[in-house]
Amino acid sequence: MTGWLDALERLAGSRAKAGLTRQLRPRPAGDEVVDLAGNDYLGLSVHPAVVAGSAAALHAYGLGATGSRLVRGSTSAHAELEASLAEWLGAPSALVFSSGYLANVAAVRGVTAVCDLIVSDAYNHASLIDGCKISGTSTVVAPHNSPAGVAAILDAHPDRPAVVVTESVFSVDGDLAPLRALHEVTSARGALLLVDDAHALGLLGPAGAGAVAAAGLAGRPDVIVTATLSKSLGGAGGVVAGPAQFIDHLVDTGRTFIYDTALPPAVAGGVAAAVRIARSADDRRALVRARGAQIVRRLAAAGFQVRPPAAGVLSVPAPGPEAAVAWAADCRDRGVAVGCFRPPSTPDGSSRLRLTLNAGVTDDAFAHALDVIVECAP
Amino acid sequence: MTGWLDALERLAGSRAKAGLTRQLRPRPAGDEVVDLAGNDYLGLSVHPAVVAGSAAALHAYGLGATGSRLVRGSTSAHAELEASLAEWLGAPSALVFSSGYLANVAAVRGVTAVCDLIVSDAYNHASLIDGCKISGTSTVVAPHNSPAGVAAILDAHPDRPAVVVTESVFSVDGDLAPLRALHEVTSARGALLLVDDAHALGLLGPAGAGAVAAAGLAGRPDVIVTATLSKSLGGAGGVVAGPAQFIDHLVDTGRTFIYDTALPPAVAGGVAAAVRIARSADDRRALVRARGAQIVRRLAAAGFQVRPPAAGVLSVPAPGPEAAVAWAADCRDRGVAVGCFRPPSTPDGSSRLRLTLNAGVTDDAFAHALDVIVECAP
Repeated sequence: MTGWLDALERLAGSRAKAGLTRQLRPRPAGDEVVDLAGNDYLGLSVHPAVVAGSAAALHAYGLGATGSRLVRGSTSAHAELEASLAEWLGAPSALVFSSGYLANVAAVRGVTAVCDLIVSDAYNHASLIDGCKISGTSTVVAPHNSPAGVAAILDAHPDRPAVVVTESVFSVDGDLAPLRALHEVTSARGALLLVDDAHALGLLGPAGAGAVAAAGLAGRPDVIVTATLSKSLGGAGGVVAGPAQFIDHLVDTGRTFIYDTALPPAVAGGVAAAVRIARSADDRRALVRARGAQIVRRLAAAGFQVRPPAAGVLSVPAPGPEAAVAWAADCRDRGVAVGCFRPPSTPDGSSRLRLTLNAGVTDDAFAHALDVIVECAP
Repeated sequence: MTGWLDALERLAGSRAKAGLTRQLRPRPAGDEVVDLAGNDYLGLSVHPAVVAGSAAALHAYGLGATGSRLVRGSTSAHAELEASLAEWLGAPSALVFSSGYLANVAAVRGVTAVCDLIVSDAYNHASLIDGCKISGTSTVVAPHNSPAGVAAILDAHPDRPAVVVTESVFSVDGDLAPLRALHEVTSARGALLLVDDAHALGLLGPAGAGAVAAAGLAGRPDVIVTATLSKSLGGAGGVVAGPAQFIDHLVDTGRTFIYDTALPPAVAGGVAAAVRIARSADDRRALVRARGAQIVRRLAAAGFQVRPPAAGVLSVPAPGPEAAVAWAADCRDRGVAVGCFRPPSTPDGSSRLRLTLNAGVTDDAFAHALDVIVECAP
């Protein structure tokens, strides 16, 4: 039966015509590329203390966790990381997952044990959307960043326990959700607020504790926070933080927690070191902010209207998917990595470059990268 | 709004009454516990070459991959691992994911681009079930390990392109699917066969290439294989292997591939070392087989009828969830880790100990562990 391969080739042909073919480009160790594409906002993935923390756990435990968290996978490295994340985020309890994707699926599905309506921001990440879908719970998509839109949906379903799901800093355009206004809407209506703080953790809030903390919502009993450990913290994995009762619920019933091999102890050990550094990294956060202002000025001078980034992500519109691909390819050929986001990775069907800030990039390399981006523009 | 916490506490109370509360028990580094619970079948998680391979990549790349595979996350370590996995599995192409869970979701959802009927074994893993659910494709659950049952379902839907989804070695009872018979059924009807080989890779087949290879099905154009890198390979992550057209399809459209931070390069580097060792580890495989026979003899002598394991997993029935928990706890108190599987982790609603084989355990420790299990029996 090879007819399916022909069918796959026809689908691939359609994607190619639409400029939507993707290609893996493995990078060698120590490449000289200037990184304006990754999510290593604080530059911690290569911080000597992070590497040392990971190496120590690697030599202490071996490579893999050897089982799910409830069987053999929980180590002291996981417990210490969870305690430090909970303290940092100001949450009663925290639970680490092997990926942010699985953390988001667990959080959304978990909360539907007590909610029968999900209100989901139109620009939410695929993992949140998959969480909604897999929960089997009625989901209403709310207009992007619209507390009034969320309020209208909740008011239309007054008798249904609801959860409002949003990112804090959105992954493609880097804009910030109006968390305080959203929480006013949810708390006035007895709804819960679930915030994916992946792109704000380490960059916003007191001691980098994230956008939820910045909005004064840390530790609220009606707020659940998720985040990844793979962006500002330079590692891998995800976390759900919230009331202890909710974390216990996930331990007992979370399918993507129970049926998944634990995060490697070496990753937990490295990320724990990264948390310690990130909490006192106001200098790195200031650098990211300054770079954000610099990039907006430089692009504005070249005629591009770009929104100042709320954290470490910003987006530059491109005329179409093929132009975006060519633009990114030209930058890459000149030693600058930039993100190229096309459908289905963009919430609105339009294509753009996505630029990210990385405190580990030198000032000279950063200035050079901005020149390259402008010079390569279509 | 704290009513939801009361509701969660009521749910927790119900679980406690049913003996279904779960507890995380972090293990310290270097604990002396005999591991008959994890999935480190070949003992490779602590193999010096695996740790060294991981440490080398950690120092070369830093801790995290810093982005998704299509943005900044693909490194030479990933490309080399994928090439070696494809060669080992005898598949044209292979794609690595950050977890086996996400690999399974991607494989099942991906194949529904060209199939509109899924036939899923009744005992399939949660990740496969979630893949079926999230695909939105009609799914019929087939009786466990029943080629005739699968044939009847396919024959009832003659005009629908179908995929049959099964594990090879099932995760709870450790029994082996009749892969050759299943493939006869699927190939005669133009259906595809998707096999999760997680618990067989490294243990069965020529050079440990898995149960699909053992059944002579490696590289068939109508077979898709998934596996984890966290069991026999001692690391973390997952892989999908199959025709290049299918792998390209996942690169272009797989949500759990595109929207997920890549596996850390240090994990890819360690697993690549593990693949090299596993391919020539016939001695370790022989030890696992001998241990399987030993455990069946020892338990039979104590009055327990236990099925010989097909690979590294076997299951010992317990009278109920609380008895299973107490049995496992008594073993743990005496220094032996065994799995305790209760609903919803068991396919049939009954509770049992799950024992696993680990070539890294010494002969003396293994014999002692069997004594402890028998002495602690309810």
